[in-house]
Amino acid sequence: MSVNEILQRAKKASVGCAVASERVRDHALTEMAYALREQADLVLQANEQDMDAAREAGTPDPLLDRLLLDEERIEGIASALEDLRDLPDPLGVVQMAETLDSGVAMQRISVPMGVVAMVYEARPNVTADAAGICVKTGNACVLRGGSLAHRSNLAIAQVLHDAACAAGMPKDCILAVDTTDRAATDEILKARGLVDLLIPRGGAGLIQHCVEHATVPVIETGVGNCHEYVHAPADIAMATEIAVNAKCQRPGVCNAIETLLVDESLAEEALASILPALHENGVVYFHTDPMASKIASDLGIPAVVSTEEDWAREYLDLEIAVRCVKGIDEAIAHVNKYGTMHSECIVTENEADAERFLSEVDAAAVYWNASTRFTDGGQFGLGAEIGISTQKLHARGPFALEALCSYKYVLRGTGQVRG
Amino acid sequence: MSVNEILQRAKKASVGCAVASERVRDHALTEMAYALREQADLVLQANEQDMDAAREAGTPDPLLDRLLLDEERIEGIASALEDLRDLPDPLGVVQMAETLDSGVAMQRISVPMGVVAMVYEARPNVTADAAGICVKTGNACVLRGGSLAHRSNLAIAQVLHDAACAAGMPKDCILAVDTTDRAATDEILKARGLVDLLIPRGGAGLIQHCVEHATVPVIETGVGNCHEYVHAPADIAMATEIAVNAKCQRPGVCNAIETLLVDESLAEEALASILPALHENGVVYFHTDPMASKIASDLGIPAVVSTEEDWAREYLDLEIAVRCVKGIDEAIAHVNKYGTMHSECIVTENEADAERFLSEVDAAAVYWNASTRFTDGGQFGLGAEIGISTQKLHARGPFALEALCSYKYVLRGTGQVRG
Repeated sequence: MSVNEILQRAKKASVGCAVASERVRDHALTEMAYALREQADLVLQANEQDMDAAREAGTPDPLLDRLLLDEERIEGIASALEDLRDLPDPLGVVQMAETLDSGVAMQRISVPMGVVAMVYEARPNVTADAAGICVKTGNACVLRGGSLAHRSNLAIAQVLHDAACAAGMPKDCILAVDTTDRAATDEILKARGLVDLLIPRGGAGLIQHCVEHATVPVIETGVGNCHEYVHAPADIAMATEIAVNAKCQRPGVCNAIETLLVDESLAEEALASILPALHENGVVYFHTDPMASKIASDLGIPAVVSTEEDWAREYLDLEIAVRCVKGIDEAIAHVNKYGTMHSECIVTENEADAERFLSEVDAAAVYWNASTRFTDGGQFGLGAEIGISTQKLHARGPFALEALCSYKYVLRGTGQVRG
Repeated sequence: MSVNEILQRAKKASVGCAVASERVRDHALTEMAYALREQADLVLQANEQDMDAAREAGTPDPLLDRLLLDEERIEGIASALEDLRDLPDPLGVVQMAETLDSGVAMQRISVPMGVVAMVYEARPNVTADAAGICVKTGNACVLRGGSLAHRSNLAIAQVLHDAACAAGMPKDCILAVDTTDRAATDEILKARGLVDLLIPRGGAGLIQHCVEHATVPVIETGVGNCHEYVHAPADIAMATEIAVNAKCQRPGVCNAIETLLVDESLAEEALASILPALHENGVVYFHTDPMASKIASDLGIPAVVSTEEDWAREYLDLEIAVRCVKGIDEAIAHVNKYGTMHSECIVTENEADAERFLSEVDAAAVYWNASTRFTDGGQFGLGAEIGISTQKLHARGPFALEALCSYKYVLRGTGQVRG
């Protein structure tokens, strides 16, 4: 099927998705989970083919691990669909209700977006997560996964589509793009009138490509150049524990820190605790400004002098930049200049300065004395997270069901006209 | 000043705008209104130059009228700023407050967007409206008005900027682009990292250009191909009154109807009432399908057979398309195919079918037995309207202060790390 045909079909299906009752949508999620378990073999076979092809192509181990499905992971995906089903209905919520001066009764109610397109990379579970969230929110979805997981994605989408339809959702409510052609992505980005919302998920390259070329509405996700700033007076043990957690627990995720900023007045003391702790927890590269370089070298920790680019890099690895700053103004300026408006943290015992940081730093999530690693839909209690937005329009930070809904004004009159 | 320099300055100013207290922002609005009245001469002189140049260039009268400022219009603009001041503060609203399992206290609070760019056409009052709304919402703004009103816009922006700064807002909080070069618009559209939200206001050409070329987040506004559908059984007198109001009261606005759809089963009776009424109220062109053509010709009303393009046109004039449909399915399909998701109306006494229309038509505002002309921020009680969104992301329908705000998650801990 051509991409245009897929989008046309999804658009048509979206009318039926929007009017599907809560009962039908929740029943569909039950059936989707059931079908995924029952037809696990079919999905696992497709995944094995993907794995074989990926191994042959010399794909590195961490990527192979992301690609891999097994019984346990399938079970995880299926039960996530059931968790989704059990969340409250996001549709039909009356957000406003007023009688206009003319006597017309007005309501603002939540409605689906229409057609949601997802463009994403390696992990095939995203296919099921996205399809499930779209069924819950009454949206038709068009899924365009990475080529590595192509067969797995198609198999999952087919199983879920058929189960959803059998439960009463309209035909074509879940469609996967059945080509690995890169032009398919670009066609989706430009499909004005057919795609109501585009969500890219993946590396910085994919997201930048989507944001720069999309003419359809898009939510920018995920790139996280996050900072921890240690400001005097600070509990150095706390600052150290937070740095180790935020850098080393999962270095490959977007809410990990990439740069440590330290107030010059406590730099020596703070870095004497933090740098060795990071080193012991696996950090191998330290990109440092001159003052931090000197301290590192005194501590016997290998450091290289940081370049301008290093402050802007999202390492996603056991690498960190370290800079000493002359107090909070310089720290806030640094964060607002190099940060990606994701998650930013200050560690200090000075409440007034902490509040300034929370207020003046422009980011989705700002922390005082807690790890940036908490930026996560599950942690925030939002339910099934579809991504973490780094833009300010519509959704910011972790976003879930609510962000896949729009609203409409419904007005009921008795013949009123405007005077 | 180059556009890039303007944007850089606005970005810098946005930090100060975001932390300006409610007292300072409201005081600024008072001073802006005062300055506009006191320096009305300066603005009127600039407007006279714009008017002279526009007349010389052979600008048509309706456009000249939009461009014109006088004492009364200045007073209207000034008092709108005072109305804005009196609205509740949209910033710092606590939208969520929870304690995470880890004990971290989380709040979601409303914050400014940052830098809001407006690209707009003829009417110079938009300059003041946009500047005022941005001051109220703590945003820095970059204003790029049409070349016809160039001198008026610059004068207004300067007066307002100086008054806002004197009241405590940061330098460069209100900046107008001081060139009529079209490339300036394109530079704004591409200014990722400097522009947090772009709002185009004007004709379909301008909006399409912005939406297609912007890489910054944008709210699409205003194009309205709106419909009235008369469904059996209907109160024909009501249907007629609504048609006349929705088509003829102000044909040049986006919430006017452009196409009349009539159920075949009452076409003869309904059109015998509606077509002459529209004709008497000034409608000169009727683009009709074959059945409506026949009825129009029997009534002695001049009609031309409608082309496919005519169904999609926003006439913005005393022109209307008329089509007979085989019931509600065809009506809904027509509206969803040709409409621009703005305002759509059904006139009927059949409640069940009316509810189907309200539910299945995909538009910002859907009406049962009331005129589409009510789609307006003032009518909806939203306060100062900045535009009418025809997209589903972030803001839909008339939008005002709330849409110029984002939110951030603020988390306060005591050293928590993620397990």
